[in-house]
Amino acid sequence: MADTAVLLIDCPDQRGIVAGVSDFLYRHGANIVHADQHQDAELKLFFMRVEWELTDFTLTPEAFAPAFAELATRFAMKWRLELAARRPRLALFVSKYDHCLADLLYRWHSDELRCDIVAVVGNHRDAEPLAQFYKVPFHHFAVEAAKRAEAETAELALLRRERIDLIVLARYMQVLSPRFVSEYPQRIINVHHSFLPAFIGARPYHQAFERGVKLIGATSHYVTEQLDDGPIIEQSTTRISHRDQLPDLLQKGRELEKAVLSRAVRWHVESRILVYGKKTVIFD
Amino acid sequence: MADTAVLLIDCPDQRGIVAGVSDFLYRHGANIVHADQHQDAELKLFFMRVEWELTDFTLTPEAFAPAFAELATRFAMKWRLELAARRPRLALFVSKYDHCLADLLYRWHSDELRCDIVAVVGNHRDAEPLAQFYKVPFHHFAVEAAKRAEAETAELALLRRERIDLIVLARYMQVLSPRFVSEYPQRIINVHHSFLPAFIGARPYHQAFERGVKLIGATSHYVTEQLDDGPIIEQSTTRISHRDQLPDLLQKGRELEKAVLSRAVRWHVESRILVYGKKTVIFD
Amino acid sequence: MADTAVLLIDCPDQRGIVAGVSDFLYRHGANIVHADQHQDAELKLFFMRVEWELTDFTLTPEAFAPAFAELATRFAMKWRLELAARRPRLALFVSKYDHCLADLLYRWHSDELRCDIVAVVGNHRDAEPLAQFYKVPFHHFAVEAAKRAEAETAELALLRRERIDLIVLARYMQVLSPRFVSEYPQRIINVHHSFLPAFIGARPYHQAFERGVKLIGATSHYVTEQLDDGPIIEQSTTRISHRDQLPDLLQKGRELEKAVLSRAVRWHVESRILVYGKKTVIFD
Amino acid sequence: MADTAVLLIDCPDQRGIVAGVSDFLYRHGANIVHADQHQDAELKLFFMRVEWELTDFTLTPEAFAPAFAELATRFAMKWRLELAARRPRLALFVSKYDHCLADLLYRWHSDELRCDIVAVVGNHRDAEPLAQFYKVPFHHFAVEAAKRAEAETAELALLRRERIDLIVLARYMQVLSPRFVSEYPQRIINVHHSFLPAFIGARPYHQAFERGVKLIGATSHYVTEQLDDGPIIEQSTTRISHRDQLPDLLQKGRELEKAVLSRAVRWHVESRILVYGKKTVIFD
Repeated sequence: MADTAVLLIDCPDQRGIVAGVSDFLYRHGANIVHADQHQDAELKLFFMRVEWELTDFTLTPEAFAPAFAELATRFAMKWRLELAARRPRLALFVSKYDHCLADLLYRWHSDELRCDIVAVVGNHRDAEPLAQFYKVPFHHFAVEAAKRAEAETAELALLRRERIDLIVLARYMQVLSPRFVSEYPQRIINVHHSFLPAFIGARPYHQAFERGVKLIGATSHYVTEQLDDGPIIEQSTTRISHRDQLPDLLQKGRELEKAVLSRAVRWHVESRILVYGKKTVIFD
Repeated sequence: MADTAVLLIDCPDQRGIVAGVSDFLYRHGANIVHADQHQDAELKLFFMRVEWELTDFTLTPEAFAPAFAELATRFAMKWRLELAARRPRLALFVSKYDHCLADLLYRWHSDELRCDIVAVVGNHRDAEPLAQFYKVPFHHFAVEAAKRAEAETAELALLRRERIDLIVLARYMQVLSPRFVSEYPQRIINVHHSFLPAFIGARPYHQAFERGVKLIGATSHYVTEQLDDGPIIEQSTTRISHRDQLPDLLQKGRELEKAVLSRAVRWHVESRILVYGKKTVIFD
Repeated sequence: MADTAVLLIDCPDQRGIVAGVSDFLYRHGANIVHADQHQDAELKLFFMRVEWELTDFTLTPEAFAPAFAELATRFAMKWRLELAARRPRLALFVSKYDHCLADLLYRWHSDELRCDIVAVVGNHRDAEPLAQFYKVPFHHFAVEAAKRAEAETAELALLRRERIDLIVLARYMQVLSPRFVSEYPQRIINVHHSFLPAFIGARPYHQAFERGVKLIGATSHYVTEQLDDGPIIEQSTTRISHRDQLPDLLQKGRELEKAVLSRAVRWHVESRILVYGKKTVIFD
Repeated sequence: MADTAVLLIDCPDQRGIVAGVSDFLYRHGANIVHADQHQDAELKLFFMRVEWELTDFTLTPEAFAPAFAELATRFAMKWRLELAARRPRLALFVSKYDHCLADLLYRWHSDELRCDIVAVVGNHRDAEPLAQFYKVPFHHFAVEAAKRAEAETAELALLRRERIDLIVLARYMQVLSPRFVSEYPQRIINVHHSFLPAFIGARPYHQAFERGVKLIGATSHYVTEQLDDGPIIEQSTTRISHRDQLPDLLQKGRELEKAVLSRAVRWHVESRILVYGKKTVIFD
């Protein structure tokens, strides 16, 4: 894996942005390995992701911001620079169902996910052996209704102590408080076991079964203060038939959940996602 | 195509149904070519579809009911017998978008749909040349708000005159009145351009675009008096990305609409659908 | 999970088979929970799978064969009876890539696969910790070219000692000898990492990359003496684009391999597969 | 639809290409609406497609080449400029199966394909009424074995007279001679009714049926002198089961053929395809 940097840009659309950015990178010796851009014609917005090898790049990470400032100001850019060498630190939250957790840990272990998983947080102890197998510290926080605020305070302390960049709710069955969510904007990814916005809320497979749908789905999204309403990152569906009873829906759904959550995590840690409004741009 | 009969059965589940039915058919010389059954374990219901060649069958269609009566009574069956030789008569309803109409007419013309399409009904005249090309009479009924009831009365008269068995709403943009719907229970098929129950009602692609979903869908269903709430027959989804603007959604959606509507029509005319409650069993 | 029996039948097609079998089961108190059948019209063959609860069934497993003999003889049936209570014993073979192994062990551990995994066999030691985590004995057999026959002899001894019913090659990179294969006819399942019959043999993803295909696939199949030529059980494909380099193909391929192999194993252990000639009937 | 130009570039990869091209376009007032690029890391090749609105662009089509020459030479570019206003002229070739023809004509008629279809060529007369309905001249050339060369000569004369840019073989069942193919390099698109490279040659659905595959496919590709071996543009697969007999494969296959052929034609006429070696880059 080459040592690369990623620049993510989000600004009003106007002429000359690509010319300006690519000229800037060229002048500083960047060897571009991927570049992708997107224009929202309706909202007149411009989005860009460019990744380059650092070998011959003449700017240090510290020197980048001052050097890039003139361009960023001229085009009113929101931007950020991510270094592949700086791996994001993840905490995985889990309850009892551990298929998403097992899937993420395996992918991480086999180098599919470019991050450091440094904590598994559970409101039950079921997943502890799995975390131990992958040598990730397991933290148990019982979340009883009366003590939810207290538990969250302890969790937040842990997250700060571990300098967590991204929280992944791997079928974590507790609703996070607005206070919690507001501390990690666009840095909490959840998997919802339906094709949102169908079947918001509890027991979506039961809802789907009752309605007699012919496909079931799963959705990964950033968590916002409104339940199941955050920007969607990835969705997938699979066919069911009248032969599929509830346990079959649950089983088929697990495949979808693993797929949409692991893709969302991969895209996030590779800095491939830009959020605007309730939407995401995925530079895959 | 062999000359076959189809028997559809819907009854409380209990032992001996298959033994009874298969023995009955065997004794009367039926050469079974397909048989399929389904049990709803929760509701304790039994569904069966059996198709056989009529060559050596010893019962005439008229003699079937009296001969089958004892068995039907013993198991409290709802049943019906369909003869492949008796092709259902269809009316297709259309507004301006004619992609579903063109698709259905082509499939019918190339013998993919075992039915007779005997009328195309439009509230606009745009689809008239297409109907004419396939030599199907076109009927124009302007559906102005003030005269909707009047138009429906005229339409119903046409449908009765033409002895229509199935009405297909091929992107027909008018909402049918409860009176109209009640005359053709489980005999009106609609295509809704979303993955129901997401995005019920008007402009679903616009709703999907606003929400930032990563898949769009389409649904074919029987029409009931409640909008977009009837038993779902078929659904399909396709992937979209941030690159897809509204016109792209419309284009990709058309493919889904054609697919789910044509499959629903095919299954209906081949007597492959059993409705129970809000659900369908598809014997495909 | 109810205590059930499965009867699988394969015979020349003729009238009266279903009537005979369902009457037989009815007379002995079987409460049928699933029944499915298939006719190959061209080859005039009949296939059936019927599953019933044993609660009120009046025949013991030992008494079944004599009681069923008359019917079996009359219709020239090949048949077998499988009891859900008798879980098949599996050995998983693996080399270095362990994604399929990890996937199968997790599914088994979470009760998705109705079998006993009693041995993991590796020609490398990489997968040993994973086997240990799931408490399955790991057996290492170095398969050097000069000593292949010797290694196979030792493996066969282990398989006999453990009374193995099914061998699963979970990305096992050794070709089994005809002698080995002949001892487990239709009882060795392999996953090939291409959409067979495209890209038979070594390095199929490299072949696919060179050819510039737009989809890659994976195939699970029973192993026969001819390489990659056995009856296909399951296949799946996924989209790739010019952006996907070889490592991307390998990664996307792993998802397919896990899916097609785990489905094949599930169908086999649930007695849902009938092989005839080079084809399979899957009663799913 | 805005009046746009598309520039397609294919050259050795090196630093500064994007900076050079985007600066060039910026200086001449181009309002870029889409830009996409691809690097083949292994072969060290660079590919780019950029589309801009012509409203404020300061170069006429005639002036573009001289102005762009310095840049093109510096980077050893192969390039071409396509104007949306200049719609490519298409000839569709057909035999008896007309589902792809009907599909393409309908899409063209409903403005989904940005081209002019100016001729339908058939070696049978079956498709003539369909061509007439869409007001496209139909040309019949009987292709008897003895007179194939003669027929091709007449066809080539027609193609030249009609200034055809792209030939689409819409299930045209004749093999074109090398002479014919060599006159339209990368300008003949065929649909093959299998997932290439599986089942090359005649009767692929029969081959698939014999092999017992669980998916069937279709492939659109540019025609080269070697049968079914040209650069693949698009592929798709669909699931089949043991229940599907040959007519079912043919029916399901038709859906795939329509999909992969119509996408290939759309991408070609929108200048979204770059061919290199046996591969294609699709800028979609």
